[in-house]
Amino acid sequence: MEPGAGQVQGSGRWAAGACVLTGASRGFGRSLARLLAPRLGEGSVLLLLARSAAPLAELAAELRGSVSGLRVECVAADLGCEQGLGRAVAALQEVLPAASPGRLLLVNNAGSLGDISKSFLDLTDPGEINSYFAFNVTSALCLTSAALRAFGERPGSSRTVVNVSSLCAMKPFKNWALYCSGKAARDMMFQVLALEEPDVRVLNYAPGPLDTDMQLLARTKTRDPEMRQYFQCLQENGKLIDCTVSAQKLVDLLEEDTFCSGAHVDFYDI
Amino acid sequence: MEPGAGQVQGSGRWAAGACVLTGASRGFGRSLARLLAPRLGEGSVLLLLARSAAPLAELAAELRGSVSGLRVECVAADLGCEQGLGRAVAALQEVLPAASPGRLLLVNNAGSLGDISKSFLDLTDPGEINSYFAFNVTSALCLTSAALRAFGERPGSSRTVVNVSSLCAMKPFKNWALYCSGKAARDMMFQVLALEEPDVRVLNYAPGPLDTDMQLLARTKTRDPEMRQYFQCLQENGKLIDCTVSAQKLVDLLEEDTFCSGAHVDFYDI
Repeated sequence: MEPGAGQVQGSGRWAAGACVLTGASRGFGRSLARLLAPRLGEGSVLLLLARSAAPLAELAAELRGSVSGLRVECVAADLGCEQGLGRAVAALQEVLPAASPGRLLLVNNAGSLGDISKSFLDLTDPGEINSYFAFNVTSALCLTSAALRAFGERPGSSRTVVNVSSLCAMKPFKNWALYCSGKAARDMMFQVLALEEPDVRVLNYAPGPLDTDMQLLARTKTRDPEMRQYFQCLQENGKLIDCTVSAQKLVDLLEEDTFCSGAHVDFYDI
Repeated sequence: MEPGAGQVQGSGRWAAGACVLTGASRGFGRSLARLLAPRLGEGSVLLLLARSAAPLAELAAELRGSVSGLRVECVAADLGCEQGLGRAVAALQEVLPAASPGRLLLVNNAGSLGDISKSFLDLTDPGEINSYFAFNVTSALCLTSAALRAFGERPGSSRTVVNVSSLCAMKPFKNWALYCSGKAARDMMFQVLALEEPDVRVLNYAPGPLDTDMQLLARTKTRDPEMRQYFQCLQENGKLIDCTVSAQKLVDLLEEDTFCSGAHVDFYDI
């Protein structure tokens, strides 16, 4: 552990409550978990979800060891299948009603790129496309409705839902039909939530081009050579963003809490 | 049949080719079929798809009786299930390779509203949400890739794909999380197609608030009373658009063929 891990920079710990984070085992999710954990007030619970059990358990152990008074739970589940999603929802329903009433923070971070070695015209298998939307859209919707229901409306509490979005929600990219349309669907869905639930704070946060496994896929597997070149240049020119830097911007946004509910906020906007 | 049905207004019949239209049995799709059929050149084929067999067969018989030299085929299939989508794709693969080479026009019109009596927080059943996206997003993607592959690239031919979109692709509405996010996903997916296939003309056409069964559902079933009131007022104030009027605007757009490929064009923009 680096010196200072487990110590909060900035405005100290938040009100006790509950935080749920999907896609927590690596990349942006793991960086965010490490930044959020020390901020969660004494008596809070942090529920981490991801597909990969081992790195998830490792992260949970690390956070338990570094942050006092924080209960860290994890559920290894594939949110793209109904059984995995069901286990995740069951965990929410167990943990959230008993959580301290101060604050609920749900971060829908889990996501996949889809098979970017394919063109639009190669997308002919409905099973593949349905699986993509089940994981990337349906699970975020169901987890959000389940979490808000399980936590409930409590006087004086705050509830915040973050959708980890992308520039791809706003702008099309060749060979990324699934990723772009999935991100567009999510942004819109969370805009509807913001309209319906004025007491819930909703943020679509586009974290910028992160230096993650997803970018490695982007620059090596994207079918279109110009697109591969574009992503290659991002890396070569040092334009990829460290996950911790982007996760810190999200934490700052949540602390300032001045964003317009339902807004799409990009790393580069702030 | 009204006087003049089967007669072409405007610039006469198009080059012979193939036209595929989903959701053809009623509403906007049926109006569009009636306007398109007399425009399709001698030797063309018109393939109509919808869930309801009887009204589909009735429409096909009407068009066969009124337009000479046009082959009209229909497939009654539920595009939301893999078996129905498979039959639709098989029909495309049978009909399109043999079609006259001049022109392919595919109109992805089929769509559903989702259960608008529910709020976002009521959307907890992944099966319901997955079914919604299978019908409204996956089927449009698979039919489009299958149609473009089956028709193929032919020198001198034109290929146009229309996505029947909505204001809801751009703007959130309470209780319409599924409809809004499905339409947003479709618009984005077809923008990606436009980028990838510069020889294919792609149009996201928002037909305006149509005087259809869907609007009846909107003003009677939407959970939020203010939303119901809004849709009620549209009807009472004569703001709903006749399907034929909006379908004619789409036909005009296709004839002029000056839209920017991938653009979202609204009835009220033109």
